[in-house]
Amino acid sequence: MSTAARALPHPDLVDVDLPQVLFALSDPTRLHLVRELDAQGPLSVAQCQAAGGDVPKSTFSHHLRTLREAGLIWSIPDGRRRTIELRRDEVDRRFPGLLAAVLDTDRAASSSDPGLPELHPAASVAGPTG
Amino acid sequence: MSTAARALPHPDLVDVDLPQVLFALSDPTRLHLVRELDAQGPLSVAQCQAAGGDVPKSTFSHHLRTLREAGLIWSIPDGRRRTIELRRDEVDRRFPGLLAAVLDTDRAASSSDPGLPELHPAASVAGPTG
Repeated sequence: MSTAARALPHPDLVDVDLPQVLFALSDPTRLHLVRELDAQGPLSVAQCQAAGGDVPKSTFSHHLRTLREAGLIWSIPDGRRRTIELRRDEVDRRFPGLLAAVLDTDRAASSSDPGLPELHPAASVAGPTG
Repeated sequence: MSTAARALPHPDLVDVDLPQVLFALSDPTRLHLVRELDAQGPLSVAQCQAAGGDVPKSTFSHHLRTLREAGLIWSIPDGRRRTIELRRDEVDRRFPGLLAAVLDTDRAASSSDPGLPELHPAASVAGPTG
């Protein structure tokens, strides 16, 4: 039996809006996968799943679908398998700087970070100006 | 009766992770509000709600809470009212370039955009390399 993987629908980036892309990136597993795809180039689904860590297969399929429907990845049939590829150039044209900021931020946020004050510099807010 | 608004907890930005911030920004109403706060400076809750459009008050309170818990806004008691302020500088230090990309992208995405091809340049993906 060699059932070929079927072609899946992919949105045109003009039909994708920013909240949908931000939502797709708002899950740690999906964000990690996007980073891996950006760093390593196209990966098989099995490689993606290995990179995704200890996530059930059905959950991982859902993550891939969320990324695909947000226009972030191609899921390309390759015989019985699929190749997953980040739509980096297209996403960059549609949402300039977004992936760069998210991927850079993601790296920066993984490293140690100096503490920031959590007290609001209050006086000016309560005042009559601004 | 003059019940003063109570102080609410705000996270230190070091305790906020990127997925949480992306999720907070992934709703159109919240994204719009962040843009308004960035453009106009601190606003009263009533002004925020007016800017947020036709959203039920309880839903809007939930949006403010989501933004506050993600470290994106201050919600500062001001007598019986509250002032909402974007934590722009802190967020910029913690996640450099993120808000700039999101806010710029949001503006860009609101304007008309040329169509992009939705066909994958397939051949290279199916090949043995990469």
